[in-house]
Amino acid sequence: MQHLKNDIFIKALLKQPIPHTPLWMMRQAGRYLPEYRQIREQAGSFMNLCSHPELACEVTLQPLRRFSFDAAILFSDILTLPDAMGLGLFFTENEGPKFSCPVQSSADINRLPILDPETELRYVMDAVRLIRKNLQGSVPLIGFSGSPWTLATYMVEGGASKHFQKIKGLMYGQPKLMHTLLDKLAQAVAAYLNAQIDAGAQAVMVFDTWGGLLTSEDYEAFSLYYAKQVSSLLHRTADGQPVPSILFTKGGGLWLERMADAGFDALGLDWQTDLTHARLRVGHKVALQGNMDPVLLYAPPEIIAEKVQTILQKYGHGSGHVFNLGHGILPDVNPEHVQAMVDAVRRYSPQYHQ
Amino acid sequence: MQHLKNDIFIKALLKQPIPHTPLWMMRQAGRYLPEYRQIREQAGSFMNLCSHPELACEVTLQPLRRFSFDAAILFSDILTLPDAMGLGLFFTENEGPKFSCPVQSSADINRLPILDPETELRYVMDAVRLIRKNLQGSVPLIGFSGSPWTLATYMVEGGASKHFQKIKGLMYGQPKLMHTLLDKLAQAVAAYLNAQIDAGAQAVMVFDTWGGLLTSEDYEAFSLYYAKQVSSLLHRTADGQPVPSILFTKGGGLWLERMADAGFDALGLDWQTDLTHARLRVGHKVALQGNMDPVLLYAPPEIIAEKVQTILQKYGHGSGHVFNLGHGILPDVNPEHVQAMVDAVRRYSPQYHQ
Repeated sequence: MQHLKNDIFIKALLKQPIPHTPLWMMRQAGRYLPEYRQIREQAGSFMNLCSHPELACEVTLQPLRRFSFDAAILFSDILTLPDAMGLGLFFTENEGPKFSCPVQSSADINRLPILDPETELRYVMDAVRLIRKNLQGSVPLIGFSGSPWTLATYMVEGGASKHFQKIKGLMYGQPKLMHTLLDKLAQAVAAYLNAQIDAGAQAVMVFDTWGGLLTSEDYEAFSLYYAKQVSSLLHRTADGQPVPSILFTKGGGLWLERMADAGFDALGLDWQTDLTHARLRVGHKVALQGNMDPVLLYAPPEIIAEKVQTILQKYGHGSGHVFNLGHGILPDVNPEHVQAMVDAVRRYSPQYHQ
Repeated sequence: MQHLKNDIFIKALLKQPIPHTPLWMMRQAGRYLPEYRQIREQAGSFMNLCSHPELACEVTLQPLRRFSFDAAILFSDILTLPDAMGLGLFFTENEGPKFSCPVQSSADINRLPILDPETELRYVMDAVRLIRKNLQGSVPLIGFSGSPWTLATYMVEGGASKHFQKIKGLMYGQPKLMHTLLDKLAQAVAAYLNAQIDAGAQAVMVFDTWGGLLTSEDYEAFSLYYAKQVSSLLHRTADGQPVPSILFTKGGGLWLERMADAGFDALGLDWQTDLTHARLRVGHKVALQGNMDPVLLYAPPEIIAEKVQTILQKYGHGSGHVFNLGHGILPDVNPEHVQAMVDAVRRYSPQYHQ
C-alpha cells in the first residue's frame, strides 16, 4: 500500500492531531473549471464522462492541479448505481437526470437485481484504480454513493422532483413496500461502497441529498435507519489503513444527535447549521465537514476570506473539522474565488491546531 | 365590535383553554377547489383576483363553506406590497411572479416610497372590510405579509430564484445597503399589517418563506432582526380585543428558541420540525402552528386520519396548538382528502383539551 504524502483529511475524520484544517470541495471536479468543460464537450455526454475511466480520472485530477485540496473525490454520479440495476439513466437538457424504467410497483421492486458492483459497475472501479495510480499517494481518494433513501427518491420519481409526491405516496401509502426497496438499496449501497474501497477508495461519503424533506420520524425510519445499515456493512480498513466514512444529509441539521449515532466517522453539514452548536451537539462522537454557503463564492475574495475565518473560528480548536462547502459548488463560480477560499483556509487554520 | 362565534383559533394562539384544537390550512383558498378555479378563470388573472375586493372576498370564503375551518385568511399575495412600492408585479405562465423593476442599486433602494397602505393598497383593506362583513363573526380573519427578508429576496432577484445569488450577493457584498433595504421593508410591513388590523384583521401572520436558506448568523441578522422590528410595531389589540401574531420561517426549525423571543404570540412550523421537541424548546413563550406534510394529503384518507392523530399526540395536552399544514396545500389535492384531515382533527383533538 502506498504511503499517503498528505493524510490530514483522513486524520481529521478520525480526530487525530494535524497541523492545519484539511479542505476539499463538493463538486470540485465540475463545470466551474474551463478544463472540465473542455473534456465534457469532448466526451459528448455526462454519462460518457462517468463511464470512461480515463476521462473520469482526468476530471477527478483537474481541481488538484489548480488548488491544494487535501482530498480527491471520484468523478461519478449517484445515479450510476440505479442505472446498473436496470433503470436506464439518461440526462435531459433542462430537466436533469431521468430514468426510462422508474420503479412503480412491487413487481418492479422485486425485480431489482442484486449487483456485483465489480462486474456491473466495473467502469467505476476501473476509474477508482486509475485515479489511485495517478494520485501516487499525494492525497486520499474519496468514494461515494447516494443514500438508500435518496436513491429511492430518484428511482420512484423517475428523476428530479419538486414535491416528491410519488416517493411520499409510496412511503405513506405502502410503507412495507418502501422498506423492501430501501432494504435492497442498503445492501446495494454497502456493496457498491465496499467495492470502491476494495478498488482503492480511502474514505467514503454517503450523500443523503433528500433526507431533509422528511418529517423527523420519517427521517429516522426511512433514511437514517438504512444509512445505519450501510455503515454497519462497510469495510473499516483497507491494506491495514482505516477507511473513514462521512454521512451528509442536506437539511439534516435538526437531527445531528441521531446522525452522530449512525456509525459514521463524520457528518457533513449544510450551511444553515451552526458549526459551534453542531460540535456541542455531537460531542466527541464524530468529526464535522463543512459548511460554507456555496453562494458565498460569488462574493468578493476579501469577503470569502473573512467568512472562512468565521467558519474556522466557529469550529474552534482541535482536530475533527474538514473545511468544505455546505453543498456543491455552483457551475458559474469564478475559479479565482475558489483560490481565495483555499488560501484563507491555509492561512488562518494553523492557529486552531497549535 | 362583532362578537366572535368561534374564537378558538385566537384563544389557542394566546394559550387559553379551548374545547378542541383549531384548524386552518395555508392556501386554503386555492386551486385545489373547483369553485376557486372557476372564479380564477373569470377573473382572467391572479392579480385581478387579488385586486378586486369582491372576488378576493368570495375566494376567501369558499373553503369555509366546505370545511369547518376555525379561521379565514385574506386572499392576497405577499408581493402586493412591493408591487405598490412601484416594482411592477406580473405573473408568467411557468416561472411564477416577476418584477419589471427589481431593486438593483442603492438608488433603487433609496427611491422606494414610504407607503400609506390604506391609500396605496386600498384594494387589500377593502377586501379585509368586505370579508369581515361577510364572515359575520363566524370565525376570525387572518391578515398577512411576507417578512422583510422574504420580500427583499423577490425584490432583488426580480422573482423566484433557485440559488438566490443576487440577494446573497447584496447581503455578503454590501451588507449596509442590505440593512437599509430591510429597515425600509420592516417599516412597510408593520404599516401594512397595522392597516389590515385597522381594517378588521383579527390575527396576523408573517411569512418568512426564505429565511431558511440563510446561515444561522445571517438568519439572525438579516431575517429575524427585522421580523422583531415588525412585531415591536404591531398593534396588539383592536376594538379592545387581542390581535395575536404568528411568525413562520420555512426551514427555521434550527432557530426556534430565538424565534420564540421575537415578540410573536405563535410560531408556524414546517413539517420537518418535530412538534414534541419544538414545544419543549419554546416552553411557555409561544403557541405553535402546524405541521402536517402537505404531500400527506395525497395519501388515502385513513392514512391522513392516522397522521393527524400522530401530530395531535406530538403536541400533547393543553392549549397552544393550531393544526395546520407545514406549508401550503398543493394545487391538485382532492378536496375529500382535506375533509378527512378536518374530520380527524375534530374527532381526535378534544381528548387533548380535557
